[in-house]
Amino acid sequence: MSLLLVSKKRDFTSLKNALLEKDPNLDVEIWPRVENKERVNFAVCWNHPENVLGNYPNLRAVSSLGAGVNHLLNDESLNKDVSICRLITDSLKDQMADYVLNAVTSYRLNIPTYVDRKRVGKWEQLRSIPKKKVTVGIMGLGEMGIPTAQTLVKNGYQVTGWSRSKKEIEGVTTYAGEDGLSDFLSATNALVCLLPLTTETEEILDLELFKQLKKPAYLINVGRGQQLVEEDVIYALETEDLSGAWLDVFQDEPLPNNHIFWNRSKIMITPHIAAVTPASQAADILVENYKRALSGMELIYEVDREKGY
Amino acid sequence: MSLLLVSKKRDFTSLKNALLEKDPNLDVEIWPRVENKERVNFAVCWNHPENVLGNYPNLRAVSSLGAGVNHLLNDESLNKDVSICRLITDSLKDQMADYVLNAVTSYRLNIPTYVDRKRVGKWEQLRSIPKKKVTVGIMGLGEMGIPTAQTLVKNGYQVTGWSRSKKEIEGVTTYAGEDGLSDFLSATNALVCLLPLTTETEEILDLELFKQLKKPAYLINVGRGQQLVEEDVIYALETEDLSGAWLDVFQDEPLPNNHIFWNRSKIMITPHIAAVTPASQAADILVENYKRALSGMELIYEVDREKGY
Repeated sequence: MSLLLVSKKRDFTSLKNALLEKDPNLDVEIWPRVENKERVNFAVCWNHPENVLGNYPNLRAVSSLGAGVNHLLNDESLNKDVSICRLITDSLKDQMADYVLNAVTSYRLNIPTYVDRKRVGKWEQLRSIPKKKVTVGIMGLGEMGIPTAQTLVKNGYQVTGWSRSKKEIEGVTTYAGEDGLSDFLSATNALVCLLPLTTETEEILDLELFKQLKKPAYLINVGRGQQLVEEDVIYALETEDLSGAWLDVFQDEPLPNNHIFWNRSKIMITPHIAAVTPASQAADILVENYKRALSGMELIYEVDREKGY
Repeated sequence: MSLLLVSKKRDFTSLKNALLEKDPNLDVEIWPRVENKERVNFAVCWNHPENVLGNYPNLRAVSSLGAGVNHLLNDESLNKDVSICRLITDSLKDQMADYVLNAVTSYRLNIPTYVDRKRVGKWEQLRSIPKKKVTVGIMGLGEMGIPTAQTLVKNGYQVTGWSRSKKEIEGVTTYAGEDGLSDFLSATNALVCLLPLTTETEEILDLELFKQLKKPAYLINVGRGQQLVEEDVIYALETEDLSGAWLDVFQDEPLPNNHIFWNRSKIMITPHIAAVTPASQAADILVENYKRALSGMELIYEVDREKGY
């Protein structure tokens, strides 16, 4: 029985150490060095290569190393009876909430502009946007969206939320489904995408959607890059359907050096760092799920293949 | 009876309008256009010229347009029996707390570095500093320091505080006086200065103080520029007694274009924007204090000239 860590390029040293600290008897292997393919029962994937997961006949479950699982759902080599689970830790939720709060406040206070002006030694007081003039709208009220909405409420923001099925969150005005989307958008000016990537949410962030936002509108994407029509951001900045964007995820990562986003002053870019799973917390859940998979129990954060999350 | 607005260069149009909206019978004058010097009973000052306030024989009180009053205490033309008051609004406290939280989180997440790297199209994931590894220490637990400390506690930071006399704030480890300073500093790595400017706090932020901070140490100055020995910041960055600084106030403002701070990548600069008094809230308090001054009552936020705040 072995637990296999699979990635095209991630350094798994600290995760392997954390797993062995939890349970010294574990047999942890790091792809592509696998001694015996038949012994692999559980795989942990991060940006994994295609057509690899089908090589392990006794694979029972696969865990993503983060909240997103679209890369696993779309892997056609993965047998349909293999369970898929996400990995969500308290730290991940906390990091996401902090990141989004920081992006909203930095936007209000013109922080990226001040960084740019520092380079040229320019002292100029810009008008901050008062907090009460910002309504932050969270698309996706799941494991990450709810704590993010709560953190924004706690810090005095007006918050709206949208999800597939109606959710109740104290202090948050919630909307649901196709029917609720345009009301949600017209009540929102700082839009935060925390949706899972599914066929329905792919390219959901497009010009038509931006046009419905309350102005001045601002986009924060911390979901998945494939949810955003990137050229529509450039267009919406020209037409002022967006006044700016704060992006952590992209269609292609790393974002190519010649990508048009880099030299747009109204776009802030961070390199997919909003929420990073800490090895020790990841190990707790992975070891538990490994044991559950071996004994045929339901996994923590097991994914419904139909829903896609 | 008139209320005089005095500044070397501030545009007082919106403040004058807000004052007249509160009380249409007020006689509001804007320096230097004063019809009759004897009619001036109350002055509101922001970066005011020297040797002007002595020209009004019937002046009863002077209000700063912000939390700082050192410019009024140091004005030798101001008669000693004229009352001095500060202007602190709920918005000012809220803005300061948001600004400091944003500076601490942006530092942890390397936001200024990502802005710099955007310019050259460089995608590189840097290690964020986990929240639990940061203890934020607030110097000055007054009208601005307390809500700032509370906001940081509410957002999951470990918080310490230091003030002249001992304060009790839930969730904050507090220290007081000369004797408590070194214990406070050695427990703190993100130091926030929110002290009033007095003879005791002038140049209090120096190399000797930075050396006592827990490492990696970070400085956030939102107090007054005169509290910081600017060349010591440069030195402390070299010796790694500081790993960075986030500064909103300076010895000379506007910060001269050739100042050494501008081209230091580890120093973030904002142009004194942390907390800006909104005209309508300012008008509420100014009208109230004007009436109190006329009837000889104690003012709201009246300053003790001995203490200096």
